Amino acid sequence: MAEVVTMGEAMLRLSPLGYRRLEQADRFEINVGGSELNVAAGISRLGLSSSWISKLPNNPLGRMVANKTREHGVDTSQIVWANEGRVGIYYLELGSAPRASSVIYDRGSSTASELTPGEVNWQMAFKGAKLFHVSGITPALSKGCAEVVGESIREAKNQGCRVSFDINYRAKLWSGEEARRCLSKLLGEVDIIITTQFDAEEIFGLKDSYEEVARKLKEMFNPSVVVITLREVKTVLTGGWRSIALADKLYTGKSYDIEIIDRVGAGDAYTAGFLYGYLSGDIEKGISFGDVMAALQQTIPGDLSWFSLKEVEKHLGGKDFRIQR
Amino acid sequence: MAEVVTMGEAMLRLSPLGYRRLEQADRFEINVGGSELNVAAGISRLGLSSSWISKLPNNPLGRMVANKTREHGVDTSQIVWANEGRVGIYYLELGSAPRASSVIYDRGSSTASELTPGEVNWQMAFKGAKLFHVSGITPALSKGCAEVVGESIREAKNQGCRVSFDINYRAKLWSGEEARRCLSKLLGEVDIIITTQFDAEEIFGLKDSYEEVARKLKEMFNPSVVVITLREVKTVLTGGWRSIALADKLYTGKSYDIEIIDRVGAGDAYTAGFLYGYLSGDIEKGISFGDVMAALQQTIPGDLSWFSLKEVEKHLGGKDFRIQR
Amino acid sequence: MAEVVTMGEAMLRLSPLGYRRLEQADRFEINVGGSELNVAAGISRLGLSSSWISKLPNNPLGRMVANKTREHGVDTSQIVWANEGRVGIYYLELGSAPRASSVIYDRGSSTASELTPGEVNWQMAFKGAKLFHVSGITPALSKGCAEVVGESIREAKNQGCRVSFDINYRAKLWSGEEARRCLSKLLGEVDIIITTQFDAEEIFGLKDSYEEVARKLKEMFNPSVVVITLREVKTVLTGGWRSIALADKLYTGKSYDIEIIDRVGAGDAYTAGFLYGYLSGDIEKGISFGDVMAALQQTIPGDLSWFSLKEVEKHLGGKDFRIQR
Amino acid sequence: MAEVVTMGEAMLRLSPLGYRRLEQADRFEINVGGSELNVAAGISRLGLSSSWISKLPNNPLGRMVANKTREHGVDTSQIVWANEGRVGIYYLELGSAPRASSVIYDRGSSTASELTPGEVNWQMAFKGAKLFHVSGITPALSKGCAEVVGESIREAKNQGCRVSFDINYRAKLWSGEEARRCLSKLLGEVDIIITTQFDAEEIFGLKDSYEEVARKLKEMFNPSVVVITLREVKTVLTGGWRSIALADKLYTGKSYDIEIIDRVGAGDAYTAGFLYGYLSGDIEKGISFGDVMAALQQTIPGDLSWFSLKEVEKHLGGKDFRIQR
Amino acid sequence: MAEVVTMGEAMLRLSPLGYRRLEQADRFEINVGGSELNVAAGISRLGLSSSWISKLPNNPLGRMVANKTREHGVDTSQIVWANEGRVGIYYLELGSAPRASSVIYDRGSSTASELTPGEVNWQMAFKGAKLFHVSGITPALSKGCAEVVGESIREAKNQGCRVSFDINYRAKLWSGEEARRCLSKLLGEVDIIITTQFDAEEIFGLKDSYEEVARKLKEMFNPSVVVITLREVKTVLTGGWRSIALADKLYTGKSYDIEIIDRVGAGDAYTAGFLYGYLSGDIEKGISFGDVMAALQQTIPGDLSWFSLKEVEKHLGGKDFRIQR
Amino acid sequence: MAEVVTMGEAMLRLSPLGYRRLEQADRFEINVGGSELNVAAGISRLGLSSSWISKLPNNPLGRMVANKTREHGVDTSQIVWANEGRVGIYYLELGSAPRASSVIYDRGSSTASELTPGEVNWQMAFKGAKLFHVSGITPALSKGCAEVVGESIREAKNQGCRVSFDINYRAKLWSGEEARRCLSKLLGEVDIIITTQFDAEEIFGLKDSYEEVARKLKEMFNPSVVVITLREVKTVLTGGWRSIALADKLYTGKSYDIEIIDRVGAGDAYTAGFLYGYLSGDIEKGISFGDVMAALQQTIPGDLSWFSLKEVEKHLGGKDFRIQR
Repeated sequence: MAEVVTMGEAMLRLSPLGYRRLEQADRFEINVGGSELNVAAGISRLGLSSSWISKLPNNPLGRMVANKTREHGVDTSQIVWANEGRVGIYYLELGSAPRASSVIYDRGSSTASELTPGEVNWQMAFKGAKLFHVSGITPALSKGCAEVVGESIREAKNQGCRVSFDINYRAKLWSGEEARRCLSKLLGEVDIIITTQFDAEEIFGLKDSYEEVARKLKEMFNPSVVVITLREVKTVLTGGWRSIALADKLYTGKSYDIEIIDRVGAGDAYTAGFLYGYLSGDIEKGISFGDVMAALQQTIPGDLSWFSLKEVEKHLGGKDFRIQR
Repeated sequence: MAEVVTMGEAMLRLSPLGYRRLEQADRFEINVGGSELNVAAGISRLGLSSSWISKLPNNPLGRMVANKTREHGVDTSQIVWANEGRVGIYYLELGSAPRASSVIYDRGSSTASELTPGEVNWQMAFKGAKLFHVSGITPALSKGCAEVVGESIREAKNQGCRVSFDINYRAKLWSGEEARRCLSKLLGEVDIIITTQFDAEEIFGLKDSYEEVARKLKEMFNPSVVVITLREVKTVLTGGWRSIALADKLYTGKSYDIEIIDRVGAGDAYTAGFLYGYLSGDIEKGISFGDVMAALQQTIPGDLSWFSLKEVEKHLGGKDFRIQR
Repeated sequence: MAEVVTMGEAMLRLSPLGYRRLEQADRFEINVGGSELNVAAGISRLGLSSSWISKLPNNPLGRMVANKTREHGVDTSQIVWANEGRVGIYYLELGSAPRASSVIYDRGSSTASELTPGEVNWQMAFKGAKLFHVSGITPALSKGCAEVVGESIREAKNQGCRVSFDINYRAKLWSGEEARRCLSKLLGEVDIIITTQFDAEEIFGLKDSYEEVARKLKEMFNPSVVVITLREVKTVLTGGWRSIALADKLYTGKSYDIEIIDRVGAGDAYTAGFLYGYLSGDIEKGISFGDVMAALQQTIPGDLSWFSLKEVEKHLGGKDFRIQR
Repeated sequence: MAEVVTMGEAMLRLSPLGYRRLEQADRFEINVGGSELNVAAGISRLGLSSSWISKLPNNPLGRMVANKTREHGVDTSQIVWANEGRVGIYYLELGSAPRASSVIYDRGSSTASELTPGEVNWQMAFKGAKLFHVSGITPALSKGCAEVVGESIREAKNQGCRVSFDINYRAKLWSGEEARRCLSKLLGEVDIIITTQFDAEEIFGLKDSYEEVARKLKEMFNPSVVVITLREVKTVLTGGWRSIALADKLYTGKSYDIEIIDRVGAGDAYTAGFLYGYLSGDIEKGISFGDVMAALQQTIPGDLSWFSLKEVEKHLGGKDFRIQR
Repeated sequence: MAEVVTMGEAMLRLSPLGYRRLEQADRFEINVGGSELNVAAGISRLGLSSSWISKLPNNPLGRMVANKTREHGVDTSQIVWANEGRVGIYYLELGSAPRASSVIYDRGSSTASELTPGEVNWQMAFKGAKLFHVSGITPALSKGCAEVVGESIREAKNQGCRVSFDINYRAKLWSGEEARRCLSKLLGEVDIIITTQFDAEEIFGLKDSYEEVARKLKEMFNPSVVVITLREVKTVLTGGWRSIALADKLYTGKSYDIEIIDRVGAGDAYTAGFLYGYLSGDIEKGISFGDVMAALQQTIPGDLSWFSLKEVEKHLGGKDFRIQR
Repeated sequence: MAEVVTMGEAMLRLSPLGYRRLEQADRFEINVGGSELNVAAGISRLGLSSSWISKLPNNPLGRMVANKTREHGVDTSQIVWANEGRVGIYYLELGSAPRASSVIYDRGSSTASELTPGEVNWQMAFKGAKLFHVSGITPALSKGCAEVVGESIREAKNQGCRVSFDINYRAKLWSGEEARRCLSKLLGEVDIIITTQFDAEEIFGLKDSYEEVARKLKEMFNPSVVVITLREVKTVLTGGWRSIALADKLYTGKSYDIEIIDRVGAGDAYTAGFLYGYLSGDIEKGISFGDVMAALQQTIPGDLSWFSLKEVEKHLGGKDFRIQR
């Protein structure tokens, strides 16, 4: 029913205000986020229809996640609802140099991690879909989730749907070795691989220039496109962003300087922008939309995108830091 | 090292502001609470030394719990620290008639629930202690916790320490039948039983006047004192409180009318007041301090007590609702 | 596409915190509300699909209104988007006795008030719909809106859709005489009339017992059902609610006592509950669901409903003001 | 230059949010208040010009007090500015039954308390003034302030200005005996005495019906009018208000039931209403305006009045607790 | 009655907190601002008396604007009060690179824009005034406002009052061509023209070095002084500021580096500083005070100035970024 | 009883939010801070036991200070409690360039400043202590405090406890000359002198390279170590930090670049880190821990440290600004 379908976990994100440490907090700001949800939301805001698949408990917190999903125009009809269980949490502490921002996960035993094969109606989910996107976080959640990811990719391909995969390595969830073993099976089926140099090194041991990393991943898994995002970490509150893509040839994006309000979700915003641009145009459009989306995402609090197509297009035209009246 | 020792779980308590529903929340106010911690804090504020025993993860949230514990002057030296694990959470939604306040627990797999026999140094914990207090929540957390409660009561008795037990039935944690089976073994060792008519009925099937309930519990378990707290639920935002105690004779407290800000923790504040009064005086002093503490606790946000001995004593002298300058 | 379709204006609702007067405010809490949107949201939460039709400017504030609409699961596909224009505002000041709560409207020239016949695709809007609901606020917004209401009711009837109408008189928008002239034409087409004694008197001069008012409205306009809601205004912060319905016979609901957090939106919550009960059952179910929805709505901040079917059903079973754990 | 002139101390008022105890606070809401400033502000809002005299340090906090004074339209040109010194503070904790609201003063060594005779330009201050108002707090601040109050009353009388005096006994500042000695000298010069039964008893030992108290004060000091305000303290969050005045005859006001948001400043709001009504009409108008102002003041946070003449007049016409649209 | 008189519109400024986008907002911080009000407030804070003329509705929001005006010590006696109407709003979203801050105006049909010739009592307004200031926003609001600006400048000149004009081009209100036609008539009467290179180009097509732009404007309209402010836009959160003035000779100010908290109101703060310096000294003092005021203004939230003469003078002496104790 | 003992004043620190000026504030964030308390808290967090000595009023604000002290694990048993009196306040305004942050003290007549010889039980306080730390603020508070500092240093030495002294010159409390006279007597007894070049110049007239200043202080007072902290003030929101120590030889620390959230307390955090490192290792460890602690402290709001030993050690290993998951 939606043009782009994504699947994964979303969590409550609880963060103290005003650069307080977690241990100092007296209040938490509540956001909802999760890699594949963030991608679905970003794509919906740019104008393609999207759907997000997950498993949520039917309690106020599970409903809050679904509410925020549909607030962004993302279809929630394929979410699996559990009578019991919990929504995972991640605590986010925002820092400034030399104190980096940091995350504490409390996602064990979430309903999303308890998703098992057969629970999702893939027939319905992929009806009319052009692309299915999932990240490397989902198979890392549990054995069942790893199986569901396998199932989902097979079903997507069966229904003629392209597959995009963001490697997104999370060292807290599994070792590089475990990731390598699992992902090696999955990535062979995938059309688009998105990753960072860092993750490519952690999982596949690829210590190289980014062009070389892209080339090797292309050789290993034979996708149509390999995308590598490059984040320059200047300080905690300033950074840079650009990306490359390797397909028939190497595509190189523009670079953006960023005054960082909240670093989280930049990669997912990139993916949303890239997939939007790619599906509605080509790889060149993909990386240019991806780069703007990633840069803008870091200027607002929260994981989810709040940008419109018009705004992204305006930023493609060049920078203007004066107040917009 | 402390005069009163308590043991149990404490959780982060996350609650929306301004009577918002959980599902509506954009911010959570953070408090820390747990039945036995609340009792220890209340006792410390009244002027007896107290100690709280639990198991906490050595992360910012575990430390936050310990920080708030010592903020109230409660000794934290006997807390068991885990390298991994989570702090339990409870979400509290405050209501107004006809919408009752409600709680959602997310306490599964907390470090506190994973406490096992042998982890606590009882020798050290009960050195110089006069009284050990625990509630019926702790044995309900896990099989290990139930064993630790048994262990703790035995050790307390061995070291010549009286034992107080608040039945505190939580239907989300176990059935009435399970509670009955477990508590029947424990309560025979206990000097002070504190409960409500409602819990006595749920667990022991005692449907009777409160005097009769007290009499039957005294017959069944032979404690020195049975205390029954009586909460008149007028509306969601107004209520009444009083208590009785049965020992050598029946003691009856005064009744208090309350404009409720936050109902949670009233029973624990009562217990703190009762134990303080009992230890520093007699049963009569116990119920009069308990009643004031329970009434006052409901006028402030949070589970933990913020009252001083002087204030409690002033309230014993009668009510005065004019502004105190 | 939705079972229930509603049409009208929604505004930003800006209100100071902590019972501050508007003139005292340093911050506004932002909510989104509007009579027919509130109804659509309430119905969606209870489990029927609903759609809300309006005209919004394509700017951040217009999008915020649409976002909140879909956050509640209401279909937004029939909203008419304007390139220019404004979202109306209403400023809400919450009071306590003897200071009543009060509202200042700043809704002039809103895009919603500039809706004109021909802009909405009624064919699409009413596809598969069982019921169309609109209130007396919409025709009062402008001459164009009054025409659109006429158009919408005709189209609904043509497509075999029942029509519900909440009289909802707003003295700031038109005189009783103007309302009478306009509504007299519309109400003859309507299946369900919902009103208060007060509005019936202001517009139609019906000064009578509520049964008599219902009887007269039934005679005048011949709907299937006339519903009258009865709000006992005890103080500013306490009130009562009940309702009656006249169809084949007189139906009388139960009465609810309410500790009021926010009085606004109670009537719309009632309508949502009534329409849900009526469509999924009968008139008796309608008024019982309506009464609970109206009572609950007053216990939370905001115009929009945040209650689930399960919660409403539980309240039908009787009141329980104790904390729900 | 102003019709009504008042003189006294104003303080920063720091109060925790959400019924937190002071000791629990993590944030303070800042208000500015002081008995005579409150009166001047209330009078200005009702439409008479007013001026407030005090001594403030020329630092951000002193300027904040002056800013809030002129925000209410009160003339600040006669304020005496000190190069050094502090603004006094009072900490306000709002309660609910059985916990009364309470105040902690930290007003020692404030610039206001260091005002000395000769610092104020009375010639300028009383130019065109009809009435000078001061309360019993001011002479209690320091020996210098007591002298300045004597000076001010003499100067006012010299310039043909009536004098109003609110006894306002503060036990933290002086004993009843000290107050009696000081006030006995001042009250003989005064045209209007405003007090409560409680203060009349504390200072002058008048234990009597309020009519009798009024009569005795009239005999003792021979003012034109004695006003007695009567506050029914029902609970902490509910109360009643009415007043009487004795001049040529006994005047009795209506009684108001109040849902209390903030009890502080009610007496000053009364005085503002009374003086406005009295100066623009007669005693009867005085007490009716005073009563409404006192009742309304308790429904908003802060000491200062935020009501308009039109609103007060509307409340004179009777109560209406429905939402005002 | 005041030394400096200004006239124009002021709006409520509503802005989300914490760099949230407008569409993300759940709360708005409320400020009051408007170009000429900002100038009057800045001048008053520096120590010259000032008055602000506008038209406001007599409702809580209109009164809020007037309250904030007099909070800054600005005379409000010449404000024209309307029984009906609205206060304009502007929504401000604060950004970080590459997302610029942005403003959405909702100022249509404000009472200020409905000001017409004859409503203001110029005789009274200019009594004793040395200078009248208005900006190019005011004539852009409506035909009536343009006429009032003409009227005001004529009256000012008649009463011997100098006139200052800040060109302040707003593309949302009129085209460059419309602005040129209107302003060309007004600027011939003006003593001081303040503008930016950007506006000079948009309206008068002057693409030149800033000295040249100043020279041409001086030739075209023959004012005593032309002032050009130069804002270096480094990033969204950092910037630079300096200015030049052309009179008998070219004056060049110092340059300031700024860590920007809120960019809005910098130009008006400059104007306030310039006019203060100019009136109390000379052009050199004008630009040095203007530059400091503009730089400081960008370090605080809100349009209105909160700086004292002493602080500004201290900054003239050089920069010191250490904490001031 | 504690390994490190400190003595001094702590104050409530009240600061506006969001870079507001003090005069603009509507709310204050409350923190507790004071040079020696900050040191004790930092040391406790790193893992040595510490105790803080002061004099506090037994009211909610005095208790709040003690609560926050023990929240950080600092022993409060040697605090002297006064029945009356006040807690000092400091108002902190956070700035951005060119507006520096600034502090207004309102600490006159605090109970801490009224401490007199004989009130502290030094025998108890220094039992088992390895080091006593005090700053130059304490003797500046009052004549009595200066005597108590003398007494404390003598007693410390008598009980075989080393003494550390942070010169910490406060120009608001005394002149450089007064400081010189007082400190010259005290510093001869001291083992560790910590200071800045600036203070060394203000008090002892030492205008030299920092190595030279250290050398001269070592000659003058003959301590084991002289530590000099060097703060590079780049802008208001960015800075650098490093330190040197002179003992047997010159030790030089690494330099840290800082994105400043709150500059206050950096020096005390340094001292905590230095003393921890020195006591648990050597001078080299002292300056490396001190530098990290000082840098980290500036990245969080509040005076008190919220860092753990593990975190500090991780920062010693080099910088990593990426998000820590």
